[in-house]
Amino acid sequence: MSEFDLIKRYFKSSAQQRDDVILGIGDDCALLSPPAGKLLAHSTDTLIAGVHFPQQTAASDIGYKSLAVNLSDLAAMGAEPAWASLAITLPSASESWLEQFMQGFNQLASQYNLALVGGDTTRGPLSITVGVTGFVDAVNSFRRSNARAGDAVFVSGTIADARLGLELLQDENTATGCTQVDRAFLLERLNRPTPRLDVARLLSPYPIAAIDLSDGLLGDLQHICDASGLGARIDLNKIPLSTAAHNRLHNRIDWPLILNAGDDYELCFSCKPEDIASIQKTMRVHQIQVTQIGEITAATGIVCELDGQAFSLDKVSGYDHFSREE
Amino acid sequence: MSEFDLIKRYFKSSAQQRDDVILGIGDDCALLSPPAGKLLAHSTDTLIAGVHFPQQTAASDIGYKSLAVNLSDLAAMGAEPAWASLAITLPSASESWLEQFMQGFNQLASQYNLALVGGDTTRGPLSITVGVTGFVDAVNSFRRSNARAGDAVFVSGTIADARLGLELLQDENTATGCTQVDRAFLLERLNRPTPRLDVARLLSPYPIAAIDLSDGLLGDLQHICDASGLGARIDLNKIPLSTAAHNRLHNRIDWPLILNAGDDYELCFSCKPEDIASIQKTMRVHQIQVTQIGEITAATGIVCELDGQAFSLDKVSGYDHFSREE
Repeated sequence: MSEFDLIKRYFKSSAQQRDDVILGIGDDCALLSPPAGKLLAHSTDTLIAGVHFPQQTAASDIGYKSLAVNLSDLAAMGAEPAWASLAITLPSASESWLEQFMQGFNQLASQYNLALVGGDTTRGPLSITVGVTGFVDAVNSFRRSNARAGDAVFVSGTIADARLGLELLQDENTATGCTQVDRAFLLERLNRPTPRLDVARLLSPYPIAAIDLSDGLLGDLQHICDASGLGARIDLNKIPLSTAAHNRLHNRIDWPLILNAGDDYELCFSCKPEDIASIQKTMRVHQIQVTQIGEITAATGIVCELDGQAFSLDKVSGYDHFSREE
Repeated sequence: MSEFDLIKRYFKSSAQQRDDVILGIGDDCALLSPPAGKLLAHSTDTLIAGVHFPQQTAASDIGYKSLAVNLSDLAAMGAEPAWASLAITLPSASESWLEQFMQGFNQLASQYNLALVGGDTTRGPLSITVGVTGFVDAVNSFRRSNARAGDAVFVSGTIADARLGLELLQDENTATGCTQVDRAFLLERLNRPTPRLDVARLLSPYPIAAIDLSDGLLGDLQHICDASGLGARIDLNKIPLSTAAHNRLHNRIDWPLILNAGDDYELCFSCKPEDIASIQKTMRVHQIQVTQIGEITAATGIVCELDGQAFSLDKVSGYDHFSREE
């Protein structure tokens, strides 16, 4: 099967229909009609086999995750998804692999009415680059620089699940004693992260700063602090952990691991003190877990506290593809 | 140097300033303000070392070419460049490599007032994925499906130079007897293709169909024919070759090589017969070479003629990453 047939078969036929896609896949460019009065929010992320997902990851999970991590960036800006491009580099043109990859990709795309409007297929070591574009009102975008001293710091969902899922795959010894239920939950969190567009939609009326947790809570929160010229204080006792994470960590609460765990794709956001009650009520009504874990401070740097005492961490930087030890 | 420092240093600082970039690199998403009344034209292309450029290619040439091939897609749709995203996968974080890469990339970006608004850097085998977005009036887009039977078929510039440049690099024996002038010309055509945005701008008043020549004249023209449900007749004697190509091919006019040579990034377009004289005059005034090489036919398939006789080619398909022999 030729490259062009592959593109036609798996990309063109599976594209979601949107009225603002004037011309989809199949010409030199897609032609798109942006909505009046909105800004476009754009993000691009690359996933490399063995770096961003384990080599043995199922094709459908890779397809799902490669779109999820990009939609997560739209959520972190408060934007509604619209269009995506997909560049896949494959060692060989496997029809079954592409079919499963696109099944995972399309599962998320259809959920958010996202149209695949362009892409490229090339031969080489497995990697996937996805670009997504969404729409946002200028005044409602969740810029990192929106934080103010005294703002409350929240996270959605639970932290470190994906990291603990990865640990199960990487270290057989660690995996002993893990229940099937916990194992399934943690691997689902690793392979099929949920872009928190649900949280973002509910937050859109509030003037918040936000980031998605891709590199780890401390490193990502530091980006909000840097952009706002501020710092933060975090109460470690308030960090939300799942039941499965509690079970895995019951005899070793490893704060550096938890605070630097990447790949959760939850949202970390700061809001004005007067909006806390309203946000908490809205989330409760929609049965969405958000937890206040600290506050933004005028002093730069992030201070972690445990039982009211300052807690020192050896390593506070987030995941970094080029500086970490491998 | 960390990934984030690299991004800041080489991507953020070098970005072109544009009023429609509300928020550039450095947040979860770029925020962009699209112009009222225009369509967005978007294209994404991946370049892999050893597939889309020789492994020994200079970093600045890779940077130049990775943007050029994408701008070429905008030219083929008649769109004006505006924004780009850049995802680079590198075996290691070499500052000097990135600096040279961005020097080549920015040379083209500044020429076309293109702003780099997003991107990603990851560790892995060298590959580059660029996404570009431009603006076009709905009625003036150069869709492949615009061709009509009886239209004239044109190409800009000259054909097969990049392929002959590649041959010089791949086969030392072939390279003997090539003058320094010809060698420099052909390698420049291979490493630094010119996106024909100049041609596209002059063609924008005309209702044309267009494609850029990335995979070879026959394969690319076939895409216009397929999209329009038509065929074409080509006069081989009219195919424009450069002086350097003539010199290289003087004792072996290799039509399959010429017609399937990829990477020239010239435009192939069809226009109405009544517009031929006007287009030729416009191009002459601007000293731009365009050559009528045939016409669109109601009968499907591409017929090549040499000295008035049908000429049969063993291989008529364009360059295909997955079906070619490697």
